[in-house]
Amino acid sequence: MPLIDNGLEILSPEQCHDLLRRNNVGRVAVTVAALPAIFPVNYAVLDGDIVFRTSEGTKLRAAVDRAVVAFQIDHYDAVSGSGWSVMVVGLSEEITDPTELGRAQGLALRPFAEGDRPHFVRIRSDFLSGRRIT
Amino acid sequence: MPLIDNGLEILSPEQCHDLLRRNNVGRVAVTVAALPAIFPVNYAVLDGDIVFRTSEGTKLRAAVDRAVVAFQIDHYDAVSGSGWSVMVVGLSEEITDPTELGRAQGLALRPFAEGDRPHFVRIRSDFLSGRRIT
Repeated sequence: MPLIDNGLEILSPEQCHDLLRRNNVGRVAVTVAALPAIFPVNYAVLDGDIVFRTSEGTKLRAAVDRAVVAFQIDHYDAVSGSGWSVMVVGLSEEITDPTELGRAQGLALRPFAEGDRPHFVRIRSDFLSGRRIT
Repeated sequence: MPLIDNGLEILSPEQCHDLLRRNNVGRVAVTVAALPAIFPVNYAVLDGDIVFRTSEGTKLRAAVDRAVVAFQIDHYDAVSGSGWSVMVVGLSEEITDPTELGRAQGLALRPFAEGDRPHFVRIRSDFLSGRRIT
């Protein structure tokens, strides 16, 4: 029997990881100048963690420098009324170790938008949770 | 000529409001126990502000009680490579004024998930921004 929270089915860690692996666009919630902000990102999964790319000098890059951030993916279908969301909360930091950087560069991780995004950021999946509309 | 920011076209306030009016699922970024969190919500627009419903005793309800929060909607099409996002940042608080509550209750605002969500929360659109993939 799945656990229910406020009308939503609680997803298992395996279900959450599976949804993270099957998708490639999510959102990062950070603090910029003491205000909350949400940035959409293309992402990939590396060792169960979230990896995405940033540009030099952006607000996002500054905000994810050794900060605890939230990352989220979701999907809703208005016709069927079905939907789910998965959230990862953990420490984010730029990948600088050459071996790790090589692995990150080998991920299928192409930003949608134009512009150089040479920096790879990893969000550790310290906390993982997911919900599905029942 | 649209303004470009890091490969993304900056949307005008009118374009942002138009996208907010045409959609009904977004995400709220808040702080829960000193950690960032993102919650998906059904929403509607009232006087240019965001209105959504919460349940008694939930983490989300506590987190949006007179706090500055970020609200975001986005859409990406992997096939065409197109996409956009709109973000609202502002003070959130429960609607308690009877006249305002009546107006909020008159909005087409039905949560996807089962469960009673009797409280209406308004996020003031103090800051509004949007980007589109060019």
